[in-house]
Amino acid sequence: MNSLGPMTAPSLNPRVFQHPIRIYWEDTDAGGIVFYANYLKFFERSRTEWLRALGFGQQVLRDASGGMFVVSETTVKYHSPARLDDTLIVTAELQTGGKASLTIVQRAYLRTANENQTSDRLLAEGTIRLGWVNSNTLKPGRIPAPVLEALK
Amino acid sequence: MNSLGPMTAPSLNPRVFQHPIRIYWEDTDAGGIVFYANYLKFFERSRTEWLRALGFGQQVLRDASGGMFVVSETTVKYHSPARLDDTLIVTAELQTGGKASLTIVQRAYLRTANENQTSDRLLAEGTIRLGWVNSNTLKPGRIPAPVLEALK
Amino acid sequence: MNSLGPMTAPSLNPRVFQHPIRIYWEDTDAGGIVFYANYLKFFERSRTEWLRALGFGQQVLRDASGGMFVVSETTVKYHSPARLDDTLIVTAELQTGGKASLTIVQRAYLRTANENQTSDRLLAEGTIRLGWVNSNTLKPGRIPAPVLEALK
Amino acid sequence: MNSLGPMTAPSLNPRVFQHPIRIYWEDTDAGGIVFYANYLKFFERSRTEWLRALGFGQQVLRDASGGMFVVSETTVKYHSPARLDDTLIVTAELQTGGKASLTIVQRAYLRTANENQTSDRLLAEGTIRLGWVNSNTLKPGRIPAPVLEALK
Repeated sequence: MNSLGPMTAPSLNPRVFQHPIRIYWEDTDAGGIVFYANYLKFFERSRTEWLRALGFGQQVLRDASGGMFVVSETTVKYHSPARLDDTLIVTAELQTGGKASLTIVQRAYLRTANENQTSDRLLAEGTIRLGWVNSNTLKPGRIPAPVLEALK
Repeated sequence: MNSLGPMTAPSLNPRVFQHPIRIYWEDTDAGGIVFYANYLKFFERSRTEWLRALGFGQQVLRDASGGMFVVSETTVKYHSPARLDDTLIVTAELQTGGKASLTIVQRAYLRTANENQTSDRLLAEGTIRLGWVNSNTLKPGRIPAPVLEALK
Repeated sequence: MNSLGPMTAPSLNPRVFQHPIRIYWEDTDAGGIVFYANYLKFFERSRTEWLRALGFGQQVLRDASGGMFVVSETTVKYHSPARLDDTLIVTAELQTGGKASLTIVQRAYLRTANENQTSDRLLAEGTIRLGWVNSNTLKPGRIPAPVLEALK
Repeated sequence: MNSLGPMTAPSLNPRVFQHPIRIYWEDTDAGGIVFYANYLKFFERSRTEWLRALGFGQQVLRDASGGMFVVSETTVKYHSPARLDDTLIVTAELQTGGKASLTIVQRAYLRTANENQTSDRLLAEGTIRLGWVNSNTLKPGRIPAPVLEALK
């Protein structure tokens, strides 16, 4: 699909967080490709590693603050399929962030590598809106300031 | 959450396709609630049963036409969590339909039943955009006319 | 596979608990068949409905007793694959039961129905060993007597 | 559980294939721990990387030989739970191998690391029996000799 050509380059700049994900049988469906709902899992793995890289493991956050992120809205566009054994590069970057919610932009690229070069083709992209709740009551609260600042 | 009150009634009219889904351990996460990505699965189960009720099983469609639906875009808003043992009612209805793509609106309601009445609270809602591809080449094609007409 | 012939009949007697499960895209993999790990999910759905039919919903059990079942051992043999749109009948019956653990036998059959008859072919069978733990501490405890008696 | 103490050391010898796996929300359930069925996924990821390390990617195998591995039997014992953010080390080693089937032993350990030392505690262990089938007909066949030799 020629229209995907221009999507290859722009976002994969080295300042954006990147996380590699391998495609296994568990990720595919009888269409021979990755089951679309799984991109939400891939996005979350990348977000989680991004937070961890900034010093905020999920369980640590929960134990320390008594709260946790909850996903309040997701949008995903699927451009091109991934297959068994593929390696994806999944990015995470802050789009907007306030005290009550954050929006993260995430993209999944297919990595193709040979001796000469590495290229990345955009497979899927989306936005994930996160709120913050008390872990016990599930009532909305404020995102801890240190987390918010680290993401910005 | 008061704001959810008005969401209870409007869409559950008897003319909209409804499919019941029970929540099992497999659907939940360590937050004690249904893992958000699973609503895409619930929506698909309901869509699939809707198509089947109209005479179009997925495998039959694939064998007969050589093509299959692929999901090209999803949006989901999460209003309220579901928990272990809950029963959800998941709806499916056509929003817009053309030869190359369809958009389906889907909602998941929590069913609460006692001796006096049944009530339904909106938990999540979204839109699923579907395209059609050749099963072997994965190249885009036209949605079979009988399917398109049945959905309308 | 001729060897599967004799497996068809024996266990599907009407006194054994039976639960129907439909195969959706989410259950399949790129081999075109149901991903084997999912039979553990199907077995659990059937076990859960069996317990519910006996009056013991999982969440109710947890709230009332402060404990929950945990799976301590699983064995599954896979005889024949299931595919998209198939309907399975999944059984559950007690094999052995003591105060500290239970073993449940479970089987998944492919249901084929036409105007003349219904037949069931054994696809997978296994045993699930369950223990009981305190929901908060996860320490082993005794299975509540009413549950144990109901299952026997 | 004291009985788990002795399980810590024996199998993690450096000659056994080891693959690290991180626990995300998607892997957990409302009990606050990893959903037991997911260990079959973790085992498969490790097996797949083991095969890849030996030069046999799954898709490459399928394209080159027209066949694929299918799982014919699984047994898993669950000793101790894993939680969100944990890092597991999942091993894979050949137990027995013939022309028609292989049995692989797999173990999942919880890795705990601090400045002084790394320790590993056995969480789950199992055996996976694999057969080989033609990718199109799903009929049993012989495991390709180069694969069999590499695993031994």
